[in-house]
Formats: sequence, structure tokens, C-alpha cells
Amino acid sequence: MNTPSPYTFVLFGATGDLSLRKVLPSLFRAFCTGQLAEVGNILAVARSPMDAEAYHAWCEQHVRAHIGSDVWDEAQWKRFLGTIDYLPLDLGRKEEFNTLAERLAKREGVRIFYLATGPSLFIPICEGLRAAKLNEHGRIVLEKPLGHDLASSVAINDAVGAIFREDQIYRIDHYLGKEAVQNLLALRFGNAIFEPMWRRDLIESIQITIAEELGVEGRGEFYEQTGALRDMVQNHLLQLLAIVAMEPPFAMDADAIRDEKLRVLRSLRALDDDTVARNVVRGQYGAGAIGKTAVPAYTDEPGVPSDSQTETFVALKVEIDNWRWAGVPFFLRTGKRLGERVAEIVVNYRPTPYPLLGEATAHAGANRLVIRLQPNESMRLYCLAKQPGEGMNLQTVHLDLAFDQFFKGHTMDAYERLLLDVIHGRLALFVRRDEQEQAWRWVAPIQAYWARQHKGPKRYAAGTWGPPAASALLAQYGTCWVEEDN
Amino acid sequence: MNTPSPYTFVLFGATGDLSLRKVLPSLFRAFCTGQLAEVGNILAVARSPMDAEAYHAWCEQHVRAHIGSDVWDEAQWKRFLGTIDYLPLDLGRKEEFNTLAERLAKREGVRIFYLATGPSLFIPICEGLRAAKLNEHGRIVLEKPLGHDLASSVAINDAVGAIFREDQIYRIDHYLGKEAVQNLLALRFGNAIFEPMWRRDLIESIQITIAEELGVEGRGEFYEQTGALRDMVQNHLLQLLAIVAMEPPFAMDADAIRDEKLRVLRSLRALDDDTVARNVVRGQYGAGAIGKTAVPAYTDEPGVPSDSQTETFVALKVEIDNWRWAGVPFFLRTGKRLGERVAEIVVNYRPTPYPLLGEATAHAGANRLVIRLQPNESMRLYCLAKQPGEGMNLQTVHLDLAFDQFFKGHTMDAYERLLLDVIHGRLALFVRRDEQEQAWRWVAPIQAYWARQHKGPKRYAAGTWGPPAASALLAQYGTCWVEEDN
Repeated sequence: MNTPSPYTFVLFGATGDLSLRKVLPSLFRAFCTGQLAEVGNILAVARSPMDAEAYHAWCEQHVRAHIGSDVWDEAQWKRFLGTIDYLPLDLGRKEEFNTLAERLAKREGVRIFYLATGPSLFIPICEGLRAAKLNEHGRIVLEKPLGHDLASSVAINDAVGAIFREDQIYRIDHYLGKEAVQNLLALRFGNAIFEPMWRRDLIESIQITIAEELGVEGRGEFYEQTGALRDMVQNHLLQLLAIVAMEPPFAMDADAIRDEKLRVLRSLRALDDDTVARNVVRGQYGAGAIGKTAVPAYTDEPGVPSDSQTETFVALKVEIDNWRWAGVPFFLRTGKRLGERVAEIVVNYRPTPYPLLGEATAHAGANRLVIRLQPNESMRLYCLAKQPGEGMNLQTVHLDLAFDQFFKGHTMDAYERLLLDVIHGRLALFVRRDEQEQAWRWVAPIQAYWARQHKGPKRYAAGTWGPPAASALLAQYGTCWVEEDN
Repeated sequence: MNTPSPYTFVLFGATGDLSLRKVLPSLFRAFCTGQLAEVGNILAVARSPMDAEAYHAWCEQHVRAHIGSDVWDEAQWKRFLGTIDYLPLDLGRKEEFNTLAERLAKREGVRIFYLATGPSLFIPICEGLRAAKLNEHGRIVLEKPLGHDLASSVAINDAVGAIFREDQIYRIDHYLGKEAVQNLLALRFGNAIFEPMWRRDLIESIQITIAEELGVEGRGEFYEQTGALRDMVQNHLLQLLAIVAMEPPFAMDADAIRDEKLRVLRSLRALDDDTVARNVVRGQYGAGAIGKTAVPAYTDEPGVPSDSQTETFVALKVEIDNWRWAGVPFFLRTGKRLGERVAEIVVNYRPTPYPLLGEATAHAGANRLVIRLQPNESMRLYCLAKQPGEGMNLQTVHLDLAFDQFFKGHTMDAYERLLLDVIHGRLALFVRRDEQEQAWRWVAPIQAYWARQHKGPKRYAAGTWGPPAASALLAQYGTCWVEEDN
């Protein structure tokens, strides 16, 4: 563990949803485990006029419900609140940033500006910081959505980039903070035995799934402008794909890793109308049930128009045109109101060169590596073993690595890790501008094609695994989605 | 499971040690689980004049103590005894084999002649069987020791081979009947993912250990004429080595598999005096302790002369001169009165091409596959994973496959499986003449060198892991014996 060093964590949007659900609870977890410096402070910034005491009361009321009982500690919580100051700030009045600068002048250490706000406020905040000369040092943290297409993403990046250097900018993709994703790097590059298995010679296809049971949870108005392609595919799914498919970097530093991820994104076979039509499926949930609870259709959610064509599900086939992956299809899917909350990477290995021990068809797909990101991060290697007793009858078994069995004690959630990475100036798990823009560039033909179609997304019943077309997509390639039994 | 077919199991040496400890208990286990045909019968043959009833009484007295409580069933035992007939037979009187032939004439199905006798009786029994024309059909089962050197082995094989065809001869090496050994074949040839890891490119060295806590257990007189090289190395260790190192056969039939094993045995680099001196260590246990129990030196065991030079321990380095294994040392060891009863195969993988995630030396030997044959058959793949939390700190973890967790119910012991294989005419797990003789041919220079040395085996204290020279042997090659923590 690094020695905690002093910092001030300036949290813009301190009374917003992201702050109360994610940022403050994660900071508290890190505080409890001694990973935050005693000398570190949080400066909460929002529009509402109140003092620190009132903000602490607000935290009591809104934040503590989001802190898991596993780390809850009343005394720690009081001490944590003691590290939080509050500053009301009206973004419309640039001069108020001078007050911020005065507050910060008294504090030593690195300054972190965490923008837990909508993207429309990114530019006003950056300009305010520049006006108060707060942009020359320090780090700025941006949250998705970082634009809604390539042009808007470039616009934000240009504006922020005019004020902060790229090495000051931390674009969060919280899937990169997950232990299992980090462990994928450790396994691939810390061991000699996985890399030889990690290529077209042995791998038949790879599936990446991020499935949610939740619907839009009262954020229909926001989601209606977003959809699954922007909300999940352009960022999380393509980032996971890049991590899975990247070559070994020459070093584990931020730019060496991000260079390799960028190379993968640049190797993605470009889509055109025909390939979008053939290889991308969009869906929208209708009424259905999650477990035994009936849930409404997306178009009946508050804030969603009844003729909405926004997709809540995307499945797609991606090809990586490079030496390692040529001819290996990557199947990605994500959606809301699916059958189960699960995020996982499934590596399907090819069958044996010939069926020495019996019918090949009986054991199709027997070799499989499943890396589960949530819930319960784990790795499982499926293979065939002999059934005990006479003869040579095979049966599927699995070798298991359950991280929580090996590593006792505090496990860090993705946000907590990423916030600590910001504090310690580690950029490796944050998305670089060129990666982000390349991802937007790659999804643009999908956006364009859908915009021209009158036929909207295909319906699926809430609680199922998306429209049948998602299965038909894989069937074209002679495979199917792997459903894990736990 | 095959449909049980009728057979008669003729057990020569029916009142001997092997019969009561292994053969009869294993037949009983198979009987209990319905794997033996109701129409099958056992004909116990020995010198002592008694009738079936008296033999049943003898079984009650001597055999039932060797049957595990897990399968014990009084009613089944009575029924099992009902399938056993007894015939007294004096091997010196060939005409008595006619009585045997008469008994067998009434019974249908395959005839199995199981020679649970010393090797000196193999030839008289075979000649008796021929005299009674019982050799033309049926199967003959031979147990180790099959000779004490190449010449004596050839003599037995010539004599038996003059009377029975090779495809009638079942030479038992009970290590080949172990589930974990069978599973090694299933894993290698039933899955596509292991074979690419199973070669010099990725493997640094392989260790095979068969360690016993037991001493000579009252059989000092026998052991004094045998020693560890003959008792364990020439057969069990070389057979395991052949299974580990063999190429994929073109089919899983007996001769295709045994051809591949033979190819390995023929690829073993031949030893000369220099290489025996350098790469073979022999030891003999002195007094010591197994657990908390003091045990005597080998030379103080009953039947062992005080100046005995018989080895109770052998460690050796073997090279396989073929395309797959060139340059990969195989380290074998076996001994009595060692620190733990364990038989296992350890595959040590090479380190990563360069230490991308940290010091190579800190993680030397991190990738390892351990296949445990006894006790508790299991497979364990060691690799490095990331410690949870900040940074990228690696830690050794393992993926586990414990066979008894996967496969509930009856597990078959090695003898039981091999006896059923004999009954069903499956030769794959039995040693072919050419394999056996090649193994004798390979150990011959060791026998010759030792015979010329005045300096006998090196002493080691009972309960330790053999003489220090066994560790020094590996140290020459920059490695050490892997001691597993369970």
C-alpha cells in the first residue's frame, strides 16, 4: 500500500445522485481502512447555500443508507464527516471560483476536482477553474456520459483539453476498476501458461455480457436520451473487449497499457449498413417479471414516451482484424431487465483436433474459461475429466478460483479503487481521449443506421435474455450464448 | 458400464498375502456395486487341502479385515462367499491340472488365471495350464516382480509367451489403474487446452514422486532381494513417466496407447557410469521417527543383514530425447520411510518471458500443475493472481479439482478397476512385454554400476525425505523438490 499523501478532494455536484450513491460511500470505505491520508480533506461543492454542518446533516440523511453494513462504524463516520467541508458555488458566477481558490490555498497536497455532474456542466466548471488559476496543477475526474456521439465527445475533450493537460484528466469507466478485470491482466501477464491459450489457434469465440435486472429506475428521461449503445456498449463493453484482446504491453504503466487497448479498438472491423443489419441487434423491454415481481414495459416507465425507440438491449458481433484474433468472433451483449444481474467474460475454446475420447458433438464447448465480474468475482475453467469407474467416460468439471475464498478481509469495490488511483495519480485504469474517441468512431455507423430506420428495437419480455434475434445472431455462427449454472 | 458377462476367476495363490489384502477385497467391492456378473464365479486355488467351506472360513478370518467399512455389508459378503469355490492343487503334480480343467468345463464364459504367487511359480503354473489345454482361451494375470533384471524378465516372458499369446497376458502395474492417472489421459486428450501447455516450450521440469511412510513391514527378506529400483523405479515410476510424456495416440485402444508409451521409454537417454554417478542417488533408511513413533533402521528390520547395501530410496534425473521434451529434466524419486505417504506428478512451468508484473525471482515456480495420485486424488493448478486492493501485487493462488467433490458415490480403487478390465478384456492399462523389457534395459546400467561400487547407499533418517544428495541432485539443475502444502 502506498503511503497516504495529502490531498483535497473537491467534489462538484456534492448533493447529486452519483455523489451520494457512489463517491461518498467509496471515500468512506477507503477512509475506514486507513487508505486515505488523515491529512486528506473533502471539499463538497454544490449550488445549495448551506454550511458544513448542514451538509453533514444532509450526508447523515442521504449517504449513510448507501454504506454497506460490512464497513459501517459510527465513530469512523463521525471522523469522516469531520474531514468534509462545504462550499456553495453558483457556476454562473465565475468570481465564486476565487472563493474556492482561497479555500484551497490553505491546503497542501494534490487537488482533485471530481465532476459528479451532468456533462453540460463540465465546460463551465473547467472554465471557472481556469479563471481562478486552479487548472495548472491538480487532476480532474470526469464521469460518463462523455458525450452522446463522436462530435459531442470531441467537443467536450477539446474544451476540457484546452484547460487541462491529458495527463491531468481521469475519465472513469468503473468496469476497469473491478478486481476481476485487474486480475485478468495479472493472470495473462503474470503467468506463462495463459498467453499461449489466448489466441485464435485455441479460441473459437469470446462472449462478453453485462446484464442488469434493473430497469431505468426512475431515470427514464435521462435514459431516453441515452440508450444501451451509449450507456454501455461504447464505453464498458468496448473497454472490456480491449482489455481481453490486448497484446502484452512493454510495461504496466498507464500509457503502455492504453496504447495496447487503443490498438485493439483500432483493429475492430469497421461496420457498414450491411454488417450493422446483420451483426447488431437492438431490443427494448416490454412488460414482464423479474423473479415473481411484475414490472412495466420500458415505454410505461415515467418520463418515457409511449412510442420510444430507445434501445434497452444491444447484442453484437465484433471482429478484430489482427494477427492474434483474426477469425475469432467476439459477441457482446448488454441490457436492462434481463434474466439475471451478471457481468462476465466467457472464452470458448476450440474442440480437440479430433475426438480421440469420443463423440466431438457430445462435448462441444467443453473447454471454457468464465471470468465473472459480478456478482461474486471468480474464474472458472471448464474442462472434461474422466468419470470414476470403468471405461473412459468424460464429464464436464471445473477448476475454480473464487477470489473471496483466497483473499480474506476487505475487498475494494471498483469506485473505491479508482478514487484511490486518482489520489495517487495512477492513470492506467482511466480512459484516454484517443481510446474514447475511437470507440465513438466505431459505434457511429450503428447510430447512423438506427437513425435512418423506421423499425425500432425488437421487443423482449422483461426478465428474459433479450429478443430472439440475439440468439439468432449467434446461431448464424454456429454457437449460442453460454448460460452459466452457478 | 459394460453389461457384466460370465467369467470364472481362477485365483492361484488364494491363501497368499496378495490375495487376502488386495485381490479378494477388490473383487468384493466390485461385487457389491453390481459390476461383477451374477454368473461370475471365483475358483480359489492353493496348495492346502481344504474344501470350499473351509476356505470361506479362512476368508472370514483373514480377508474381511481388509475390506473397508465403507463397503462392508454382511449379507453381500455371504452372497459373495457363495460365488467362491476352492480347489487344492499341488503344482508339482501336473495331472492335478486336469481336475482344474474338469471344474472349468462346467462353467461358461471367459476364464481368468490370476497368478497371485511368487514369480518362481509362474512357469510351473503356465505349464500345468498348457498340459490341461487351458491355455488356448482365457487370460493370464501376472503381478510384479516380473523378474529382477532384463535377463530374468526375458526368461519369464519367453516361458509364459510360449504358452499364452501376448494378447492373453495382463501384466499388472497398479499405478496405471489409479483414477488420477486415467484422468491425466482424459485431461490431455479430451481437452484442447492442455496439450499446447504440455511441451518443452512451456515446461521447465517435471517431478514424479512415490513416497511411502511404511518400511518393509516384515517382508525384509523379500525386500532385501529387491530394493527400490526394482520394486518401484523400473515399473511404477517409469510407467508414470511414460503416461505423462507420451504423444497423443491415434486411438485409445490398448496397443495404440502402449506403442506411444514404448516410444517414450525408447526415448529415455541411455545412462552410462558417469551419468549414473551424477544423476542417480540411492539411499537406505536409518533409524528415525514416523510422526511421533520411533522406527528402526532398515538394517535392523527382521530378515535384513546388518551390512545390507539394498537401497530403500532412489532419486534420479531422466532426459527424454525427443522433439517434445528435449532439454526438460524429469526428476523421479521413491522411497520407504519418507516424510509422508504421497504419490504425485508435479509439472513446473517456465516463468513469463520477462517480469512484466514484478521481480521474476519473487515468483519463480509460480506456475505449477500438481496431479496427486494418493492420498486424495486431485489436480491443482497454481498460478499468480492479483491481491485485492491497490496496485498490482501478485500472490500465488490455485485452481482446484478435487475428484471426490465432483464425483459422488463409489470410487473405484486401482485394483478393482484392473480386475474388471481383465474380466472385460481391456488391455490398455496393462504393461506390454516390449515396454517392460525396455524399462529393464534402461535401468540395467544403474544395476551394473551399483554392483561394482563398494560404497553402498547413502543413509537417511526414517521420516525425512531421503539423503541430502537427492536435493543436491536437483540443485545441480537449479531447482528443488516441490513440497506441497495441502
